[in-house]
Amino acid sequence: VSRKFITLLTDFGEQDPYVAIMKGVIYQIVKDVTIIDITHSIPPGDIAKAGFILKESFSYFPKGTIHVCVVDPGVGTQRKPVLVLSRNYFFVAPDNGLIWPAIKKEAEYKVYVLDRPKFFLPKVSNTFHGRDIFAPVAAHLANGVNPEEIGSASQDELQKVLLPEPIITGDCIIGKILHVDRFGNLITNIPFQLLEAHIRSETIKVEICGQTIHGIKRTFQDADLGEPLAYVGSFGYLEIGINMGSAFNLLIKHQEGMEEIIVKVSGFNANNS
Amino acid sequence: VSRKFITLLTDFGEQDPYVAIMKGVIYQIVKDVTIIDITHSIPPGDIAKAGFILKESFSYFPKGTIHVCVVDPGVGTQRKPVLVLSRNYFFVAPDNGLIWPAIKKEAEYKVYVLDRPKFFLPKVSNTFHGRDIFAPVAAHLANGVNPEEIGSASQDELQKVLLPEPIITGDCIIGKILHVDRFGNLITNIPFQLLEAHIRSETIKVEICGQTIHGIKRTFQDADLGEPLAYVGSFGYLEIGINMGSAFNLLIKHQEGMEEIIVKVSGFNANNS
Amino acid sequence: VSRKFITLLTDFGEQDPYVAIMKGVIYQIVKDVTIIDITHSIPPGDIAKAGFILKESFSYFPKGTIHVCVVDPGVGTQRKPVLVLSRNYFFVAPDNGLIWPAIKKEAEYKVYVLDRPKFFLPKVSNTFHGRDIFAPVAAHLANGVNPEEIGSASQDELQKVLLPEPIITGDCIIGKILHVDRFGNLITNIPFQLLEAHIRSETIKVEICGQTIHGIKRTFQDADLGEPLAYVGSFGYLEIGINMGSAFNLLIKHQEGMEEIIVKVSGFNANNS
Repeated sequence: VSRKFITLLTDFGEQDPYVAIMKGVIYQIVKDVTIIDITHSIPPGDIAKAGFILKESFSYFPKGTIHVCVVDPGVGTQRKPVLVLSRNYFFVAPDNGLIWPAIKKEAEYKVYVLDRPKFFLPKVSNTFHGRDIFAPVAAHLANGVNPEEIGSASQDELQKVLLPEPIITGDCIIGKILHVDRFGNLITNIPFQLLEAHIRSETIKVEICGQTIHGIKRTFQDADLGEPLAYVGSFGYLEIGINMGSAFNLLIKHQEGMEEIIVKVSGFNANNS
Repeated sequence: VSRKFITLLTDFGEQDPYVAIMKGVIYQIVKDVTIIDITHSIPPGDIAKAGFILKESFSYFPKGTIHVCVVDPGVGTQRKPVLVLSRNYFFVAPDNGLIWPAIKKEAEYKVYVLDRPKFFLPKVSNTFHGRDIFAPVAAHLANGVNPEEIGSASQDELQKVLLPEPIITGDCIIGKILHVDRFGNLITNIPFQLLEAHIRSETIKVEICGQTIHGIKRTFQDADLGEPLAYVGSFGYLEIGINMGSAFNLLIKHQEGMEEIIVKVSGFNANNS
Repeated sequence: VSRKFITLLTDFGEQDPYVAIMKGVIYQIVKDVTIIDITHSIPPGDIAKAGFILKESFSYFPKGTIHVCVVDPGVGTQRKPVLVLSRNYFFVAPDNGLIWPAIKKEAEYKVYVLDRPKFFLPKVSNTFHGRDIFAPVAAHLANGVNPEEIGSASQDELQKVLLPEPIITGDCIIGKILHVDRFGNLITNIPFQLLEAHIRSETIKVEICGQTIHGIKRTFQDADLGEPLAYVGSFGYLEIGINMGSAFNLLIKHQEGMEEIIVKVSGFNANNS
């Protein structure tokens, strides 16, 4: 496969030159590559959030794309820098769990520990391996160097970040919110497949923060202006949004402990009950 | 003309992977294309703002550029996805008025309704046509597929968003603010041509929010530090700014109803009066 | 050297189309160039901040890269637009001091005043030379036009912005904060070399805003969670950060006058005292 594409996913923000420096390092090594920013707005050190974003986006890129992921609160410690080759993609990242949700989806993979300084910058800092290790490794990979040459094959298990799974009981599903997007839409961890038989069913009830939403809508405009609605989002999960508004602002903003918020879906198979 | 360039203009922000996913979809279909972000910071659903930004920027790109515009509050409803071919550019967008201000400037154009799923992703969601329809269509276009093949020629009128026009009375012009930029400069809808004969005339008076500004300045530094000034902005409209400060913060921030704010220009042809 | 890369460093933000318009202008003139954003989030008009960011990032790019820097509060006044050719790079910018910290590092350089309108856009505004002068000049340069042809060689001294230097007394170093990054890390102006002999020495004391930090740590995780630490940052300066937290929020946020904050380092050569 072609290795013409490199993506970057970090918590570096866009105000500092960190991301640009990584790109400069890459282009010093490989001229003919296209770099795509996934996002640099991961909250500082939020490995689980980065893992979710990577999992939902990596497979939209051409096969052979090199995904460079640097959310790395343990930079400079014993956590290992790794290169993972899956069926279709390369992942270059600290082994801290970030890439696990994506790797798991890919099923087959090989792990290489990045332990060969000839593929790093000559001087490696203790605080910016994005620049000193991950960018140059990705560039050498894009240049066609074999994974076997770049790192040492490893049989060790990868670190794992596990995104919360929904809990299914007899008559309801208990889910959580994985992500709030720019529109204030709430992306839950309840996959479409669990709901599939019930789409458009007016018998479904979604409860969150004391509000009850009835039925699954097809589009935003199927709800009244300002009215919360539940729908199947573009990542394939149940989402909660507001037609021309922000569900986050209405439902969540003033709550404490985002991680504690529960989404309860009930009313399934009402025709059978 | 070459179709090597694709621009993206959306309200997706940069924290979520939506924009990156569109780029991945494009690069899966066409490898040799350059993608340029116009902006992704359009306020959610603000079609008129997107229309203004597109109108002021599209013509700076090489002829043949494919402008992909996704501010799409009606996604999944009956609003039509379209491809519009103007004299110099392609526009790929929902037909909700967004592209109208740009198209109007181009004068000649042909409309194609995007109704051929073979140019979409295999599965089309109800909430993310940027990924499922607009990105792949733009990519096929960049690959050289003819507009006639991609969509069905349509004689229907495009939806229109009309930006407010200034009102000219005998002795003054009444304008509005179209945009506030990062510097807090206020971009009005009063075009340069209306003022051209009067540039640098100290007889011109600009009134806004209870403040009166005398004369049109050439540069920011022609005004004292912190002093509001009127000048001809880079888009060709009258603008109001502050030398080393924010006109928005000084004049507008504490007002209600941005859309209601009026800019009154008088003192024209004072030599004739 | 190859001139295939252009970087952009501005205070234009990402909400407006200014940056995209510069890119469009460049691509109209040169098709085969890669444009990299260093950052567009420089505080409006902050020449010193831009000078610092440029100085710390320019040399990570391939030789021959054209660095276009537009933080230009004096746009339209007598300040000169210049092209500077250093040993390894091109710089295209207003001559207002912005590029000086980078140029100084490069040591050798030639200055060309941009006074030849045939390399500008046909119409030059008084408020957006990024679009009208700097972008097209960079593009012509990328196309291989010689600096001698693009501008007039000048013997005048460049304007200088001087970043504050640390003050060394007998038993301590007095420094300042040059930059706060996205993580809230405080980047001081005290270079690594001054401290080199003392790294990991527990006798070093760093005082800031009434807090005293003992010793220099190697990585963030060498400090307890939430505890301030001093370390050598990736730009080679002493930095102050917090393991999984923001030093800015803890130490600085509520202080007035960022520029007045002093970092005092003492305890050197304790073994000799």
